[in-house]
This record gives sequence, C-alpha cells and structure tokens, in this order.
Amino acid sequence: MTYAALTPETLPRRLGDLPALTERIGPPEGWKVAEVGDGNLNLVFIVTGERGQIIVKQALPYIRLVGDSWPLPLNRAFFEYHALMRQSSRDPGRVPQVFHFDEAQALIVMHYLSPHVILRKSIVRGVQHPHLATHMGRFLARNLFRGSALSLSGRVLREDMALFAANHALADISENLVFSDPYFDAKLNRHTPGLEPFIAPLRADRALRIAAQEAKHAFVSKTETMLHGDLHSGSLMVTPDDTQVIDPEFAIYGPFGFDVGMFMANLLLAYHAQSGHEASPGARDDYREWLLVQLTEVWRVFAAEFRHLWQTERSGILYERRVFEDVGDSLGAQAALIHVLKEIWRDALAFCGVEMHRRILGLAHVEDLESIPDPATRVLAEARALETGRIIATSRHALTLGDLPLLARDIERTVAR
Amino acid sequence: MTYAALTPETLPRRLGDLPALTERIGPPEGWKVAEVGDGNLNLVFIVTGERGQIIVKQALPYIRLVGDSWPLPLNRAFFEYHALMRQSSRDPGRVPQVFHFDEAQALIVMHYLSPHVILRKSIVRGVQHPHLATHMGRFLARNLFRGSALSLSGRVLREDMALFAANHALADISENLVFSDPYFDAKLNRHTPGLEPFIAPLRADRALRIAAQEAKHAFVSKTETMLHGDLHSGSLMVTPDDTQVIDPEFAIYGPFGFDVGMFMANLLLAYHAQSGHEASPGARDDYREWLLVQLTEVWRVFAAEFRHLWQTERSGILYERRVFEDVGDSLGAQAALIHVLKEIWRDALAFCGVEMHRRILGLAHVEDLESIPDPATRVLAEARALETGRIIATSRHALTLGDLPLLARDIERTVAR
Repeated sequence: MTYAALTPETLPRRLGDLPALTERIGPPEGWKVAEVGDGNLNLVFIVTGERGQIIVKQALPYIRLVGDSWPLPLNRAFFEYHALMRQSSRDPGRVPQVFHFDEAQALIVMHYLSPHVILRKSIVRGVQHPHLATHMGRFLARNLFRGSALSLSGRVLREDMALFAANHALADISENLVFSDPYFDAKLNRHTPGLEPFIAPLRADRALRIAAQEAKHAFVSKTETMLHGDLHSGSLMVTPDDTQVIDPEFAIYGPFGFDVGMFMANLLLAYHAQSGHEASPGARDDYREWLLVQLTEVWRVFAAEFRHLWQTERSGILYERRVFEDVGDSLGAQAALIHVLKEIWRDALAFCGVEMHRRILGLAHVEDLESIPDPATRVLAEARALETGRIIATSRHALTLGDLPLLARDIERTVAR
Repeated sequence: MTYAALTPETLPRRLGDLPALTERIGPPEGWKVAEVGDGNLNLVFIVTGERGQIIVKQALPYIRLVGDSWPLPLNRAFFEYHALMRQSSRDPGRVPQVFHFDEAQALIVMHYLSPHVILRKSIVRGVQHPHLATHMGRFLARNLFRGSALSLSGRVLREDMALFAANHALADISENLVFSDPYFDAKLNRHTPGLEPFIAPLRADRALRIAAQEAKHAFVSKTETMLHGDLHSGSLMVTPDDTQVIDPEFAIYGPFGFDVGMFMANLLLAYHAQSGHEASPGARDDYREWLLVQLTEVWRVFAAEFRHLWQTERSGILYERRVFEDVGDSLGAQAALIHVLKEIWRDALAFCGVEMHRRILGLAHVEDLESIPDPATRVLAEARALETGRIIATSRHALTLGDLPLLARDIERTVAR
C-alpha cells in the first residue's frame, strides 16, 4: 500500500491486524485514538486498548510547523528507526522500545511512556529531576563513543555513515536554521518585538558569525559519530526517576560535540527564562542553581563515562591499543584522551552558542521563553540568552567548565532593564 | 561476462571490438600489448596499434605487491573511474582522459601519456620540472575546494561522500599502513638494516604516536572533500612542461590537508635521498634547493588558488556569502579563510610527517631511498627523513612555511654519521 497519513478514524482499521499492537493493547474494536503530536514535524497517536496504550508515530510529507509548502521526505522515519535501534543497544533502556516499523507508511509503533512528561514542560514548571545529568551524560558518552571509530571498524563506520548520509534533507534544515538564518535577516526568522536593540550588535559581531560558520563546517564535515541530531529538552520525556530520549529523526553522522552542546544550550535557555516564570523575584533562585548544576554535571558525567569507555572499550580503529597499551604506554592513551575531550568541549561550546541564538532569532523557538507572559520580561530573558550564547561561541577556545555558571550568573545580573 | 584478468595474449581478443580502442589505435589485428604495471595494485597494459597507443588498466582481486594472500575488492576501479571524472571537471587537463570504463571487468581504458615519465624516477635522476609546483598547487586547490561543501550543496556532498565511503577497503589500507604500523613492530613492516638505532627512539616518542593517531582521527572523521588519497610522486607523470595526476583508486572523502601533506612528504623524502644519488658530495646541492623551493611553492600556489576560489566560487553551504559579503562584511569571509587555511596547514603537516615515516618503516617504500646503492648512505638518509617527519608532525601547531626548508637543511647537517 502506498503511503497515506493516518487519522484517528482510519488508524484502527489500518493497523488493527498488527500483532505488534494487538498483542500489547488488545483487539482494535476497543481502541481509542488520540492525535497528540505537538512537535514540528510528525503525527503522533496514543492508541488506548483494553490491555494498554501504545504510541504510533508517522512522518508527514511536509513540515508540520510550516505546512505542505515545505515538503520533507518520509524517509526520516527510516532514519529515526535505525537511530532508535542503535541507541537502544548502545545505552539500553534510555529510548522507547520499538515494536513495529513500516517503511512505506513512515510509521513507527513504540512503547507509550507513562507517566512521563516532556522535560521542557517540566522545567517551565520548575520541577527538579535528580537523575537528569547522570542519565544524559551517560547517554551522550555511550552513544557518541560506541557510534564512532573509537569503537567501530572502518568498514562498519563508513557503511553506517553512508546510510545516514541519505538523511540530508533533515541535515539541511539544521544547516540553514541553526547555523545561518539567525545571523542575517532570513525570511523564516522571527523574534520577540522589542528585542531589536540586542539583535543588531549580535549580527554585527564578525567573530560570532565566523564562529557560527566554523561550527557549521564542523557539523557538515566532522563525521565522527552518529548523532541524535536534535537533542533539546523537548526531545526528552521524564519522570522523577527516569529519562527517555525520543525523536532522533535528525540522526546523521557529525561531531562528538553536537548533541552535548545542544543539550547544554537548552539548559542555559531555561536558566535565563526563569525570571519569566517565578512568582516573585528570586523565587526560582534554587531552581536557577539546579539548572546550572545540571549544566556542569552533564559534562562531568559525560567526560567520566567517555573516559571509562576509552579505557575499557577502545576497540575501533582510532588511538589503537597496539600503539599505546600494547607497547607499555597506557598513559599515552590517557594523554591522547585529554586532547580528544578538549576538542569535543570546544566544539560543544560553539554548538551551544548557536543553538541559543537560533531558538530566539530563528524559526523554531522554545516554550521556556515563548510562554513568558510579560513582553518586557521576555525580551530581557532573551537578550541575556543571546549574550550568553555569543560569549560561549566566541570564547570557546578559552572557556572552562567552571566559567560557565559564573558567566550565566554574571549575564543575568549585567543585562538588566 | 564475469571478471577475468587480462593478459597480453587475451587482451586483443577481449577488447578488440571496443570502438573506444579501435577508433583511436586501429584494428586489433595489429595490436602489440605490453604489461607495464610497476605499482603495487594493478595490471597496466600499453596497447600499440597502427594508429596510436592507449592504456588499459585493470584491477586485480588482490594486492599485487603482496600476492593473492591479501584480497582487495575490484570495485576500486569504480572509485578510480569516478574520481577521474570529478578531477577532470574540477581541474581540466590534469588527469588522463578516460575513453571507456567496464565495471564488471574493473577496467579503465585511458589516454597513453607520452613522453611522460613517473615523477619519482625523474626526481631520482635529478631532473627539474619548472611547472611542477604551479600545476600541483592548482590541482590540489581546485579539486579540494570544488569537491567540498565550500562549493557543493549538502545533498550533493553527502551523496558523493556516501558513494566513496564504499571504498573502505582501500581506506583501511591507509589507516593501517600509514598511521599505525610504522609506530609499532607490525608484521608487514620492513626497514633497512642498520636503521634500528633511529627507530627505537622514534617509536618511544609518545607525542609522535599521539600526533599520528590524531592524524588518523582526522583522516577517518573529517570528510571535508574528495581526496586523491595516494598523491605521492609515483602517482604523477611528467614532461618538462606537463604534469599529469594518475591512480586515484584510493579516492575517498577526507580532510583538505591529506593530499597536500602526502605530496609535501614525498618532496622531503626526495630531498633527504639526494646524498645517495650525487656523484660527489654537494653535486646535487642545486637540486636539493629546487626540491625545497617546490615544497614551499606548492603550498603558496595552493593557498593562493584556494583563496581565489574562496572569493569567486564560494557557492556551497559553508561560510555563506549571505552572512558575510551580502551583509557588507566581505572581510569577515577573508578572516574566516585565514582560520580554514591554518587548519589545512596543520593537518597537512601531520600527514606529511606520518607519510615520511611509513615510507621508511612500513610496507611500501619509495624508490628515492630504496635505490641508494650504499647501505650506510641509505641508513643516514632514512634517519634524516625520520627525524624531519617526527619534528614536522609533533610541531605542527607551531611550524610555519618558512620553517620547513630551514628544518630540512638543519637536519641534513645535524644527523651525520
């Protein structure tokens, strides 16, 4: 059958004979179907049967956020499926289990996460998640390390890189919306009225535009590992104890630092958004500090886990044991790791900076800032986030982990009405 | 017809009805066939007919240098063909014209270069080629720039990268023989007897082993542009006026600096080999200096041509005009170019250093050194080349273009019997 978008009405008829569904939630006669997709790209259905619930995610042949004027290939479901398979084996239990994949229908049937909520919404409400940094630091290290030539043979790496290279339509979105559009008056840009005095100097900053283009150069040409590709706080579903990573349809080979930097950016956006969500000035101070702790902890956990894997699982074609450990120089491998982590850190900072900018100046914004009711407060929060991203990107060669929270706090104080 | 290796006897019968041959050299009845392959991998036939001569190159299903114990896929002819097509359009006239390609037979029929000789043999004889640096600097810049995201769309780049990623068997050879084997006691290594006192400290140099592995990391994971992949002086055919680049079967996407560094390394190997080829000490001093001039000139021409293309053909997805020239900041693009060229230079130095080592310690050596008749002179020349490569690789962050000839001359004087 050729592709056709599902609707709540047609879903039971079209998927009612799939054992992947019926064995888990019961016969289709009793199904209730709700379309809940609130992302930018896809249809998402919760199907409730007499024995349980399940998720059916289907790609649309265009970008949902924009409409059918912006076509987008259905094969992104194919890449999402393949990314989920790799992520589930590289860091088991951190992505939803897949029960069925239909390539022609661009459709994935997967575990219904409950009582999980989207992390971004939880952060807007000021909820702390004690395991977030640990879960994400490990997820990043395990996926980035195990998907790279530090773990894989050259053949496996290149075959997988070639497979995901066909996901160029989604990479093209990142290449335009993340790295370029925010830095000039692009057609799809939008920004909060009143922010203009902060945008002009940012776009005039030559070093920043160079930094953004160097980051784009790295995104396009450093095919180090399989990325999630869109790892913001809207791509995480959480409970007090659990963290689940969803929506890897932007998966492609890219630099180690990309997912790390994107995630850090979204924590910093949340940090600067707090003034728009606190009942009275200072009411969210503890939460502000919790966000900054997540920021530094996620890197610490990432680096520690990456180091652990470096020592125990370095079986790929890079930094081989036969030129370090096997010739009695295990410390040589440790020295090499210092260089590798430094480059990941520097790249992550560049990606962090541009992600902060594009979420304020580009097409796709974040609820943390969009939901601030007072316009003046929102402009101020956005101006602070723009400055933080600007300094992070342009100072990436110098900035240390310890600098990050100091910088964020300084800017929160310095950029004032 | 399934693949079968040609012989001088079977070639006229098997290819005699190909218009690509008969139209150019005449009917097969008059053909004389000579097998002249002196490379490491393939069969090469010169076919002489009544109206002219033509080259037939056919891949063997194993590495010719080693024998059928080391199988190698025939599809390398496919990649050589595709590389030749791209190179001929990106820098017209610098690669031999292809008249026919047969994928099943792994066979390419191409222009017979005459009176060209292999550059390496010409260098061993001490012959100067006045246009070498200009031709090669332009070839490098035009191919590397036009094969990258500086010139191409993301889609074209990724599709082409995926195509060449299937050439992983040949990349695997480089990954092992160039970057790893020289730095430990690998099975395929060989070296000149008497060189041992210079090998042990080199392999004990941790910074060098890290530099070599960082270079391997870049080779594997920086898919910036289509490389020739094996650009040494045995892959060039020259006359006093012409330079032709052959044998791109190692073509794959990799870092801008790789081909540049490989070519520079082979000039430096030739430089240190001169003492083994001069009639009396100092007799080749002029030639030594000519080689060092080529070394600096090829970079100068490369950088100048790359800069020209940056200003006039930067139509890809990186460092876009819409964030520099189109917003009135053309100097911003020039500043970004400084960073890009610096990184190419640094990468090239690392590749230069490891190439110098593997040609002395690894499996595949160079005639420049192998043909030195006196064993002691040869050991000394190789020891000097090892030291030059070592300093270049480990000092790559600091070394300037002006340092290179000074370094080579210093080592020629310092490392003495």
